[in-house]
Amino acid sequence: MAAERKPRVMEPAEEVDLSAVPYNLPGVKAPSFSGFFLKMFVWVLENACLGPLFLSILNRQNGITQMLEETVIPETPMFQPEFPEQEPEQNVISTEEDEDVLARVQLATTCLPPHHPRQDLSAESGSPFLYWTIRDYALAYQSNLTTPTIVAEQIILVVEDLNQRKPPAPLLISFNPNDLREQAAASTQRHLEGKPLSILDGIFIAVKDDVDCFPHPTKGGTIWYDKVRFVKEDAVCVSRLRRCGVIFIGKAAMHELGMGVTGNNSNYGTVRNPHSFERYTGGSSSGPAAIVACGLCPAAVGTDGGGSVRIPASLCGVVGLKTTYGRTSTKGSLCNGGTVDVISPLAATIEDTILLYSAMADPSACDMIALSPPPVCLPNLSIPSKFNVLRTLKLGKYAEWVEDVKSPDISAMCEEVLNMLSSNHGCQTIDIRLPELEELRGAHLVSIGSEMLCSLNPHYKRGRRTELCLDVRASVCLFKSFSSANYVAAQRLRRRLMFFYMQVFKQVDLIVTPTAGMTAPIIPPGALECGESNFEVSGYLMRFVLAPNLLGFPAISVPVGHDKQGLPIGLQLIGRPWEEATLLRAAAAIEELCLGRMNKPSSFYDVLQGTA
Amino acid sequence: MAAERKPRVMEPAEEVDLSAVPYNLPGVKAPSFSGFFLKMFVWVLENACLGPLFLSILNRQNGITQMLEETVIPETPMFQPEFPEQEPEQNVISTEEDEDVLARVQLATTCLPPHHPRQDLSAESGSPFLYWTIRDYALAYQSNLTTPTIVAEQIILVVEDLNQRKPPAPLLISFNPNDLREQAAASTQRHLEGKPLSILDGIFIAVKDDVDCFPHPTKGGTIWYDKVRFVKEDAVCVSRLRRCGVIFIGKAAMHELGMGVTGNNSNYGTVRNPHSFERYTGGSSSGPAAIVACGLCPAAVGTDGGGSVRIPASLCGVVGLKTTYGRTSTKGSLCNGGTVDVISPLAATIEDTILLYSAMADPSACDMIALSPPPVCLPNLSIPSKFNVLRTLKLGKYAEWVEDVKSPDISAMCEEVLNMLSSNHGCQTIDIRLPELEELRGAHLVSIGSEMLCSLNPHYKRGRRTELCLDVRASVCLFKSFSSANYVAAQRLRRRLMFFYMQVFKQVDLIVTPTAGMTAPIIPPGALECGESNFEVSGYLMRFVLAPNLLGFPAISVPVGHDKQGLPIGLQLIGRPWEEATLLRAAAAIEELCLGRMNKPSSFYDVLQGTA
Repeated sequence: MAAERKPRVMEPAEEVDLSAVPYNLPGVKAPSFSGFFLKMFVWVLENACLGPLFLSILNRQNGITQMLEETVIPETPMFQPEFPEQEPEQNVISTEEDEDVLARVQLATTCLPPHHPRQDLSAESGSPFLYWTIRDYALAYQSNLTTPTIVAEQIILVVEDLNQRKPPAPLLISFNPNDLREQAAASTQRHLEGKPLSILDGIFIAVKDDVDCFPHPTKGGTIWYDKVRFVKEDAVCVSRLRRCGVIFIGKAAMHELGMGVTGNNSNYGTVRNPHSFERYTGGSSSGPAAIVACGLCPAAVGTDGGGSVRIPASLCGVVGLKTTYGRTSTKGSLCNGGTVDVISPLAATIEDTILLYSAMADPSACDMIALSPPPVCLPNLSIPSKFNVLRTLKLGKYAEWVEDVKSPDISAMCEEVLNMLSSNHGCQTIDIRLPELEELRGAHLVSIGSEMLCSLNPHYKRGRRTELCLDVRASVCLFKSFSSANYVAAQRLRRRLMFFYMQVFKQVDLIVTPTAGMTAPIIPPGALECGESNFEVSGYLMRFVLAPNLLGFPAISVPVGHDKQGLPIGLQLIGRPWEEATLLRAAAAIEELCLGRMNKPSSFYDVLQGTA
Repeated sequence: MAAERKPRVMEPAEEVDLSAVPYNLPGVKAPSFSGFFLKMFVWVLENACLGPLFLSILNRQNGITQMLEETVIPETPMFQPEFPEQEPEQNVISTEEDEDVLARVQLATTCLPPHHPRQDLSAESGSPFLYWTIRDYALAYQSNLTTPTIVAEQIILVVEDLNQRKPPAPLLISFNPNDLREQAAASTQRHLEGKPLSILDGIFIAVKDDVDCFPHPTKGGTIWYDKVRFVKEDAVCVSRLRRCGVIFIGKAAMHELGMGVTGNNSNYGTVRNPHSFERYTGGSSSGPAAIVACGLCPAAVGTDGGGSVRIPASLCGVVGLKTTYGRTSTKGSLCNGGTVDVISPLAATIEDTILLYSAMADPSACDMIALSPPPVCLPNLSIPSKFNVLRTLKLGKYAEWVEDVKSPDISAMCEEVLNMLSSNHGCQTIDIRLPELEELRGAHLVSIGSEMLCSLNPHYKRGRRTELCLDVRASVCLFKSFSSANYVAAQRLRRRLMFFYMQVFKQVDLIVTPTAGMTAPIIPPGALECGESNFEVSGYLMRFVLAPNLLGFPAISVPVGHDKQGLPIGLQLIGRPWEEATLLRAAAAIEELCLGRMNKPSSFYDVLQGTA
């Protein structure tokens, strides 16, 4: 009798034998709905009597609150990622701590491999890359092949054309041709005078709709956020890019409030995957990923609180970086104050990712905690022996986890890349095990859900509830069911999990997984108009991305090939805290290995024709 | 219409005009119950249907969840006190960062004023202090007037006598005469050999029941915690004291789980106030305060998460220190992992407070966050000019707040002490205003309640609910009603409030308030058997103590006199982060000014006779 009354007591983290932990990441158990049934589902969830009852069943089924409430967790809470002292990164180029953004970008250009220029705007020869890179644009401007103004007019044509299609699937939620023309004219003028601000001068970049980019409103994919929160200036990250001469084309579409990873948005229309018009881009940075994959911009600014940069990057066949927590400022974004969120770049190539990263990273930007980030480090890819240091690199692979995906194509691709890295670069693959994957998922969900709801609550309570997408309303009901003690328990798990991962990082330099457990999912009928709530799909999309969010590690998704249906597959690398340079160097090696087999999606205009 | 839909939006903290903020700390609106009505109240609260309904009314009435959910708080969350960079304390004696505890205590003794020894154990002449101090004991041992073994036998007699009284009101929940005799014999032996470990060798100290003191169980005032959590060693603080030769007399009574500030405990009986047997001691460190006030021990170890050291110290006429958050380790206590809790000493005198503080403080002990505490500093009270530096001291007084108390005696006494400090020491009193006192109360309640509930939940869910005191069950129901988003919102308020207080600390060195808004409350009929839930009384007791908990500041309660009924009044000083030395110096000056009018309670045995 007495024994039965004892709750589950976790062993202290330092006593857990990491080599013997069982694999535990079951699929998410929750019903999926779209159309009329989603409406009914939300009605039930929001009902004062039925809702709590239904949610208590749902929570018992998925086991999250039970795990948080009925387990003695011996660790103290860790409310934000706290990183143990570490050795500085080796074989990297370190920037000065208080370096000016222009000097930093200049340094970054010297780290890039030799540039193989394209012949002209339309030619595909020359550069090995599928897309025009930032250096391609810079060279084209420098050699007067084109000007920012000419490119801007092309972009305006394309965007306005897109905006008139039915059903709507706009890449941008806010677009202002006049503002764009003004920015382009100023940049054109600087180029004409031979005084571009930096290599980024005249580069067109889209900003996700949850990051402030003056004079655009910030709506976070909703239809009302701009009525309660006013944009008076750029977010810190955007302002850093603007100082380099970047031209902002507008606010890219997103999953409403970032509360979903498909990109479905019934307010403005759902962005389509450039590789398959019937499929999702992934989310929540759906617009940024599609804009880059289409070739409209070489890069975009996204936010990643639960894979929101990496998932759409993976599904759209582009690169998505998630920086270390605290490396970029979240000031001026809707996710400011979050403990799992970062603002990070998406780009078509690693070299453009490096350029954006070098401009956006801001060691003095940690609003939330007195972290002491080391200086920003960059991999030197300009030297012939640029990948030599990979020979000592140890890659961790958790076989059971990697194999637990929707399609075997994904794990096979992951395996193949690891083999290539081993045979071409001498990297070593080490089998690892990661404990408590399910606990990590629960701790992440409670953390991000509570923090999002905290920001939303004052508006939600003032009647904005009914102005939200149905799937977001369902998520809000779930988040509302978490108690404050659940939140604290999740933070206890965070400290515990941090210990486990830092133990693993003593054995390996990077953890390698697929980015997502499935390739781009089909948009089901009815999901365009009313949205969709499908926890099984979300579960597959998110099963590999959460540790970098909850624990603050840097991670990157690199396109490595396609599944049998021709849909892009992304590989995820997870690095030690602050070690973005190692991550970017390994990603560059993978990009070089896999570039030959990547396909550019049918061109932007082909996609447009698909809508007709 | 659109305007009505806008929620309350707080101004950013740095834009608030602190000189113009309105006073806003209304009394707590909540029903109070004891006896049968408390049983009914708890039955309603715990009822699956009525409970949530009733709590939503209660929460709407007290405004806490409404404030947290319907307000846009512009600051990012601060999950634990984070202190801005500060100047080091002036005119203090700084210890080495990694100094051994014995060396630290040795240094502390050199900071004490000259010792005026008593003539013998029973004489009241000599020392100006009401109670035997640690130095009195040390001298008595040194000069063979007594031995720890003789004192131990006296304590055993007293405690066993007390334990047989009806109704029970034991000072100690766990008491082990044999363990006490063994500790005393070892200390006596060391003294006989002329090799005491430190001035604390042979000093009898009680430890609150939520801090581990091997071999005693830790029950936190419950009847079951020792069945689910096993004590294998001393808490860090206790172990530091033990290394100095301290003798631990057992586990002092407390309000169950620290979830109340009266000290009412229907499990073991309610500790009585030594100054008036019909009154509460205050809590939750009820046993430690009463033990010191009775003269049974010169000092005790308590915990303070919401005034739990300072309130009972004030109500019992002794000194209660709350150290800066992170200054003492909470490892090995039930409040380990809390963001508002510290382990701290209670003592009869400031000099004994300094001795215990110097032993317990541990700059390497911050389990929770990478705070960088400056070295432990001590005020030098050994020099004739020891109070000269007070001449430059600026004391902040918020008149409206100080006057908003149950009895005018309290604010008059506060005013009188400020006048004495001014006329005798040249201190300057400065009028200050503190904004958002009610928000602070809400943020504190949600923080401490959620963190306590997180630890309790696994046991509560396994049927321990019915083994808890009724008032604690009522509090748990309230804490369960807080959502995870409420917790995050409370942390946003914490950052905001930290800004305000640090602004005030630019104008003043210490904030002076009464410790409690009332003197010791009467124990109402029926409250002994079934407990009592009286939010009005809790509100009065806690109205001045919460900022040091939520924001981590050091604070101290010093006895300064009595009200018309002869009940002790405590004055609270709140200091800048880490500035315990300034706090202790000012407290020593106040003690010297007020000592002449303090009364020792009717002796310990008189109190016992009251029960017969």
